[in-house]
Amino acid sequence: MSLLTGVDVAKHNKADDCWVIVHGRAYNVTEFLPEHPGGSKIILKYAGKDATEEFEPIHPPDTLEKYLDKSKHLGPVDMTTVVTEKAEESPEERERMKRIQEMPLLEQCYNLLDFEAVARRVMKKTAWGYYSSAADDEITLRENHSAFHRIWFRPRILIDVEKVDFSTTMLGTPCSIPFYVTATALGKLGHAEGEVVLTRSAHQHNVIQMIPTLASCAFDEIVDAAGPGQVQWLQLYVNKDRAITQRIVQHAEKRGCKGLFITVDAPQLGRREKDMRMKFTDEGSNVQGGQATDTSQGAARAISTFIDPSLSWADIPWFQSITKMPIVLKGVQRVEDVVKAVEAGVQGVVLSNHGGRQLEFARSAVEVLAETMPVLRERGLENKIEIYVDGGIRRATDILKALCLGAKGVGIGRPFLYAMSAYGQDGVDRAMQLLKDEMEMGMRLIGARNVGELNPGMLDARGLFNHASPPSDSLAYAVYDPLVNPSQRLAVTGEKAEKAKL
Amino acid sequence: MSLLTGVDVAKHNKADDCWVIVHGRAYNVTEFLPEHPGGSKIILKYAGKDATEEFEPIHPPDTLEKYLDKSKHLGPVDMTTVVTEKAEESPEERERMKRIQEMPLLEQCYNLLDFEAVARRVMKKTAWGYYSSAADDEITLRENHSAFHRIWFRPRILIDVEKVDFSTTMLGTPCSIPFYVTATALGKLGHAEGEVVLTRSAHQHNVIQMIPTLASCAFDEIVDAAGPGQVQWLQLYVNKDRAITQRIVQHAEKRGCKGLFITVDAPQLGRREKDMRMKFTDEGSNVQGGQATDTSQGAARAISTFIDPSLSWADIPWFQSITKMPIVLKGVQRVEDVVKAVEAGVQGVVLSNHGGRQLEFARSAVEVLAETMPVLRERGLENKIEIYVDGGIRRATDILKALCLGAKGVGIGRPFLYAMSAYGQDGVDRAMQLLKDEMEMGMRLIGARNVGELNPGMLDARGLFNHASPPSDSLAYAVYDPLVNPSQRLAVTGEKAEKAKL
Amino acid sequence: MSLLTGVDVAKHNKADDCWVIVHGRAYNVTEFLPEHPGGSKIILKYAGKDATEEFEPIHPPDTLEKYLDKSKHLGPVDMTTVVTEKAEESPEERERMKRIQEMPLLEQCYNLLDFEAVARRVMKKTAWGYYSSAADDEITLRENHSAFHRIWFRPRILIDVEKVDFSTTMLGTPCSIPFYVTATALGKLGHAEGEVVLTRSAHQHNVIQMIPTLASCAFDEIVDAAGPGQVQWLQLYVNKDRAITQRIVQHAEKRGCKGLFITVDAPQLGRREKDMRMKFTDEGSNVQGGQATDTSQGAARAISTFIDPSLSWADIPWFQSITKMPIVLKGVQRVEDVVKAVEAGVQGVVLSNHGGRQLEFARSAVEVLAETMPVLRERGLENKIEIYVDGGIRRATDILKALCLGAKGVGIGRPFLYAMSAYGQDGVDRAMQLLKDEMEMGMRLIGARNVGELNPGMLDARGLFNHASPPSDSLAYAVYDPLVNPSQRLAVTGEKAEKAKL
Amino acid sequence: MSLLTGVDVAKHNKADDCWVIVHGRAYNVTEFLPEHPGGSKIILKYAGKDATEEFEPIHPPDTLEKYLDKSKHLGPVDMTTVVTEKAEESPEERERMKRIQEMPLLEQCYNLLDFEAVARRVMKKTAWGYYSSAADDEITLRENHSAFHRIWFRPRILIDVEKVDFSTTMLGTPCSIPFYVTATALGKLGHAEGEVVLTRSAHQHNVIQMIPTLASCAFDEIVDAAGPGQVQWLQLYVNKDRAITQRIVQHAEKRGCKGLFITVDAPQLGRREKDMRMKFTDEGSNVQGGQATDTSQGAARAISTFIDPSLSWADIPWFQSITKMPIVLKGVQRVEDVVKAVEAGVQGVVLSNHGGRQLEFARSAVEVLAETMPVLRERGLENKIEIYVDGGIRRATDILKALCLGAKGVGIGRPFLYAMSAYGQDGVDRAMQLLKDEMEMGMRLIGARNVGELNPGMLDARGLFNHASPPSDSLAYAVYDPLVNPSQRLAVTGEKAEKAKL
Repeated sequence: MSLLTGVDVAKHNKADDCWVIVHGRAYNVTEFLPEHPGGSKIILKYAGKDATEEFEPIHPPDTLEKYLDKSKHLGPVDMTTVVTEKAEESPEERERMKRIQEMPLLEQCYNLLDFEAVARRVMKKTAWGYYSSAADDEITLRENHSAFHRIWFRPRILIDVEKVDFSTTMLGTPCSIPFYVTATALGKLGHAEGEVVLTRSAHQHNVIQMIPTLASCAFDEIVDAAGPGQVQWLQLYVNKDRAITQRIVQHAEKRGCKGLFITVDAPQLGRREKDMRMKFTDEGSNVQGGQATDTSQGAARAISTFIDPSLSWADIPWFQSITKMPIVLKGVQRVEDVVKAVEAGVQGVVLSNHGGRQLEFARSAVEVLAETMPVLRERGLENKIEIYVDGGIRRATDILKALCLGAKGVGIGRPFLYAMSAYGQDGVDRAMQLLKDEMEMGMRLIGARNVGELNPGMLDARGLFNHASPPSDSLAYAVYDPLVNPSQRLAVTGEKAEKAKL
Repeated sequence: MSLLTGVDVAKHNKADDCWVIVHGRAYNVTEFLPEHPGGSKIILKYAGKDATEEFEPIHPPDTLEKYLDKSKHLGPVDMTTVVTEKAEESPEERERMKRIQEMPLLEQCYNLLDFEAVARRVMKKTAWGYYSSAADDEITLRENHSAFHRIWFRPRILIDVEKVDFSTTMLGTPCSIPFYVTATALGKLGHAEGEVVLTRSAHQHNVIQMIPTLASCAFDEIVDAAGPGQVQWLQLYVNKDRAITQRIVQHAEKRGCKGLFITVDAPQLGRREKDMRMKFTDEGSNVQGGQATDTSQGAARAISTFIDPSLSWADIPWFQSITKMPIVLKGVQRVEDVVKAVEAGVQGVVLSNHGGRQLEFARSAVEVLAETMPVLRERGLENKIEIYVDGGIRRATDILKALCLGAKGVGIGRPFLYAMSAYGQDGVDRAMQLLKDEMEMGMRLIGARNVGELNPGMLDARGLFNHASPPSDSLAYAVYDPLVNPSQRLAVTGEKAEKAKL
Repeated sequence: MSLLTGVDVAKHNKADDCWVIVHGRAYNVTEFLPEHPGGSKIILKYAGKDATEEFEPIHPPDTLEKYLDKSKHLGPVDMTTVVTEKAEESPEERERMKRIQEMPLLEQCYNLLDFEAVARRVMKKTAWGYYSSAADDEITLRENHSAFHRIWFRPRILIDVEKVDFSTTMLGTPCSIPFYVTATALGKLGHAEGEVVLTRSAHQHNVIQMIPTLASCAFDEIVDAAGPGQVQWLQLYVNKDRAITQRIVQHAEKRGCKGLFITVDAPQLGRREKDMRMKFTDEGSNVQGGQATDTSQGAARAISTFIDPSLSWADIPWFQSITKMPIVLKGVQRVEDVVKAVEAGVQGVVLSNHGGRQLEFARSAVEVLAETMPVLRERGLENKIEIYVDGGIRRATDILKALCLGAKGVGIGRPFLYAMSAYGQDGVDRAMQLLKDEMEMGMRLIGARNVGELNPGMLDARGLFNHASPPSDSLAYAVYDPLVNPSQRLAVTGEKAEKAKL
Repeated sequence: MSLLTGVDVAKHNKADDCWVIVHGRAYNVTEFLPEHPGGSKIILKYAGKDATEEFEPIHPPDTLEKYLDKSKHLGPVDMTTVVTEKAEESPEERERMKRIQEMPLLEQCYNLLDFEAVARRVMKKTAWGYYSSAADDEITLRENHSAFHRIWFRPRILIDVEKVDFSTTMLGTPCSIPFYVTATALGKLGHAEGEVVLTRSAHQHNVIQMIPTLASCAFDEIVDAAGPGQVQWLQLYVNKDRAITQRIVQHAEKRGCKGLFITVDAPQLGRREKDMRMKFTDEGSNVQGGQATDTSQGAARAISTFIDPSLSWADIPWFQSITKMPIVLKGVQRVEDVVKAVEAGVQGVVLSNHGGRQLEFARSAVEVLAETMPVLRERGLENKIEIYVDGGIRRATDILKALCLGAKGVGIGRPFLYAMSAYGQDGVDRAMQLLKDEMEMGMRLIGARNVGELNPGMLDARGLFNHASPPSDSLAYAVYDPLVNPSQRLAVTGEKAEKAKL
């Protein structure tokens, strides 16, 4: 069979007759258009053209195999015949390229926040929008880190801390430091290789990686990238079709995953306005009016329509029946539900508000932890379940605080994505090493020789539950029109207005 | 009778002989001048001229019919003979026109605060001043929204939220979502059509509209604009002349209004300095000195002199005698008065501080709600009365918080005015749709299938009563002269002063 | 005797032979130089010259009569022969003159803070420095007003407030509104006529004026300026020489003063760095080194060396023996001392921290009031003494809060100085009228018909005692060098540094 | 022996053959390179060259004698033959030189913060980086001073304060004011003469100086600089080699030191990112990647590798056996350890978090003090031990607060370094005098005649333990990408983006 040509494909460039090229092969997506979770509009932009660049970071490589009927696979295209539109570089993109050239050396990054600062400068606007965005006014996003700032240390002195050991175990697996790489979606938005970069760094530093359902890489790619003996967990969005879910879970177990983390805080994936705003292009028009809201609501919504909002406590026994992996509920947000989790017989919970990306004004994980542990201890349940937290962890002191309060370990997500996006695997490696350096220092300065010695008496967490100071940089304050004193009389506009202030 | 000409009218251009043209008809307002609630100065500006443009947004169409004796109606004017002064466009106005041309597409507004940001750019300065202003330093205005930021969620997980239903009933009327469009004055300042725009959107979305006493549209216009079955309420400022009040109330009941909301927080309408400042023009002079304060105190004072400051609890039985509509007291601000309202036998209260426009440092409605409900429950009164709140609601999470605390519904005012001023009915429609989208998400993420499941245990509101952090952007801080360190020696003024800082 | 000439005087221009001209008369101040409270340096600047302009605002007219021996009075000078150095106008002063020309109309000032904003623009730098400065980091200065922002209202509704009456009595004197003009020094710094301007406005508005010891006008001038029946009080700094004190007190009583306010918070007058900084001129040199601190520490120190730091409770009976005027202790700062004051049999106290000008971190008067009243009530002392407060009062709501808590009245100082400095008597009149307008509104909106109805139940003052949020604009924060993320690599200085931020 | 020439030395300019010149003498450091605590890189920069300028401030003069084997001492160099590379002055350095020329007069510094502001302008960037830096986000650094801002006074009035006496004794030594000069490292970074400058000022003002282990001057130089009867203490970092420690301690006792302050909060010296960032030069490359973190971590790490992390309570008796000096533990951070210190029989503790330079989120000393004293009093231990605090003290009011709470005295470090760096000894003298002036004022205004009268009732410290408001200028906020409202449509980049905001 002769190859298709660019001209062949280009003819099918309408909604009722739509072909696209992905990775050198043509596909007929006419009938698929209305079903596309990300909306048809984005596909139509590439009708008759090569869509690979746009397709790549958002879809695992096996997507078309899985979801598009074989009859729609039209075969390979002679790519030499495909006209590649030299995308005119926007001034914005030119600025970004310049910033990349001048970006700081890796060794100038001294903490995890530094990677975020660099990533913000060098990442594509849309990728940055997807990673950094959160729900509503992003108050929860900031609270996650701020909450740690309301906890202070009560360090012990004159403890022999020549040797400090901060290794621990999670779900039975020994690891070198009490954090794991938590699941985050769409790794290829930040780096061409995607999640396998994180796999390699996790191996390098002997920490556990949680594999996301919504990875850019295929699940097996990520497992294949693991080193000998490297432990991985599976993060699961539960599909409306339980057969698919069962297949995924049992495949993961077969491939050696050592934990099943069921996300329970996302019956519907959050609206993230920054993500939507960054994705917006001016090509639309005002005609559609106010009757309907836009369906192209950023990357998050596009990829998540399969998630089952009916998932409930009643489903837990079924999961226990299909796998022997330890089960952990990810996204628990109040002590009552931790107790329920113990009663349901799961092995762990992750206290988490999904990085501030789901329910705005969900409390920080560390606050829920401080609410939870005394209740568990009172009921004698503190050893019946492992408690993890994620959200806002940027420093080893944050990890120490969580462990003092009773957490078994903490999950870290965005910081590694930022390190990866800015510096690739070297970046992630350095980020992890910085945490280890900080951790050694922190253990010594707090006067603890191993994680078993960390305890609540080493903290002053009285301020943690205080929510008295709403953030002063919310959208509402941005909109508020400040009062002014009377202006000088000649002031009218522009320069004069400046003068009028004094 | 031949038509009057512009020249005929123009002769009467003095305080002791003053005619004006409104909607193509001339009126002799000489004797009315001292009685004009907005002061005589503003009328004299148009003595002998066409005052329609200024008159329009502030007065319902039937105003002259109602308030000016028929003998002063001089009849139609041949408008072709009236010289229209081409108002020279100010640089400020030119800037605004440009901003309107470049304003964001409606679909770029992702939340209610966005409409406020756009409205601020595109509204007339005086209209913006009237809508956005509030009492004194506008601290209460900001507190109204900030108070919600001191309430955090305790969401339930693993609840089957495939179907969530946030419909409810208010005063017996089913509605699609637990908010109503609350009464706000002078709709035509923001949009040429005025309050009927809100009527249409309310119908579109099946929510209740409260008709304001101080509407720009006539009451009947607003009722006429309602769709079949659409429910409206009447907001009432009580007139010193109770006969007028009785006529208004009974007319509203006859026209089908389903609730009477008596405003009780405005025995005198608030001074709003921003409104006054924006209305100020340099044409005055300093001669009047400090002896008397300016009588032209913005739009609010101009339209409200009829309000009766002697209204008291003793008047409630009379209202109950003249109408069968449920009676709701709007503007209750402490639990003692909620209990009194129950005793007085009214059907509801609106906890409200009038959008921060009346008493500065009145507490937010949501805080008064949190004070009120435990007392009502303790006394077994929680089902004897419906509790509404308004003020500062911008997000569905705000609505959810109010409902968890025990409110039956919430009123939203300014955001719809801003949406209307910026984008007309499409804007209001989209604003309401955004709230519905947010509400569905919020219900799911908090783990509630219907409004009946919302309860105080879903909140952490411990921070709500905390008033420890006075706002840092008050007028007092603007005036405070910050301390400085010693400056460099050569610094004198201007550029050098800049250098002196470092 | 023939007149002295400018040439005659000009010869005596050295430290060991120093004449100066004041108000057209020459004085030999050679021997007085070392005794001058403001230091000799400032006099030597005018040795052999006319010092009137510098002398005028800081010294009452009878100063030279009182303090310089008659033998040093050299008699009148022929002023036509005195060379007046045309002071070269500084660029700074030119800017100020321009700002004065363009200053807002009086009617554009809508509240007391507006006067402060205008005064800051148009006052001489040194005068602004003296009036506006306070102790150390001026944290107490800001706390005084901020404290009111931590108190919220619990207004009553449906009270017949057609007539509201906010008149009251203080120390038995009826007055139209519960504030008095408190004592502030050096009125001529802000206005050529000095304190008599305040006297006239106080008469105009029927409020009491407290006459300061450190007035620019002579005491008798201020009393003479009073209208018929106008009530004045005397503020007293107690002189080390009690005979002088006795003369002052008894003279005041004879002239009709109705209250003696003894300042008890100033055994030493405060260091006010802004005042010192603004007075500093570059003429000095570095030679004096660090051994001794500068003696020219602003206006405050210059005029206050006579104050007796040994004043103690033991002195109170003596005061009671020399006058029949009610005695009030001004500057009490904790409840223990209020109780002592009752025991000492004085008629009142002013809770005050001296406008933040004395002890930095002294609590606000309104906080001390909230601490005091419950204790007095518990001991049945609340009617044994009148409690006044001053400091930070800018709005009628501030007055209402103080009265609800139990104050008899409040003192207001700086705002009237600012109004006077910017607009003269018209300014002060308008400032007082604005307070009356606000007061009428506030009484209505809080639901109180007279000051007797004001009570603690109308407030939510729970936040008042909270000092958890140190101010974020302190000197310490100005000095703190913020952390930065890694900069871009090519950034070096200036423009490049700008770029480096992003 | 003929002198070495510059050419002779210049030949040995490689890692495997490395000579350097220091103070006119050549040294063979080839074998020493890997052992250099500050890393080999910094030495190699001077291989074959004169390294004096870099060596000087960081090493006491006897360093090479002590640490480099005599066989490596190559003898004097004929310095006329050494080519001095005229370092090209950087634009940054030129700016600094200009700032120095225009720096304020000493007499323009009115408080300790002023010295910091001036020092920031005129110090070398690296020196400023070393002195001003602190751990992580420098939140503890700011908390140290902020904590004092949460403590307010309850001053007494009408106390005869003509004579106030704020002298006291510390460890038995009378001193003129209750502060001492605490130990800070590397004085020559700020001033060519180093710590002896502080010695002279301490003598001038009769205050005690604590001599740092890590001084730039040799210990004996500092002791020799002391005046007759001047008291000094020794601050000790305990060496892994206890013989060295013993030698140091016994030598200090022999030289007359009156107190041994053992640092217990620094088993490992803190990472200070600002210090690291300022020291970073672009000469490195990216090759080393993320595998290892940089070893050139600022001055602090370079000089401190000898410190023994195994130091523990078990070592205390040994110290007591080798010296008769009173022993004080410096860096205690919770009440439990203060009680342990009493039990261990030491004479004192310094509550301290090492100026915020060690454990981020260690509480302020003054907060630990407020936690400690009630416990000591309850157990009757308050007179068994002397309690000192350091960290964040900038005003006499800070000293007064600490003493009211129960401290015997306070340590002040950085402010004197800043005063010294900007103005030399005159600066330090003036800084101390300013504190004395403030202290006299503060004693009078609080109503205390001597330090014995200071007591907790003079404070309102209820806000002190409140950690509810995390700082708003943390790195995390710098990195946070604020939300924005929809921008105007034509806005793209640069200028247009500016316009888009409104």
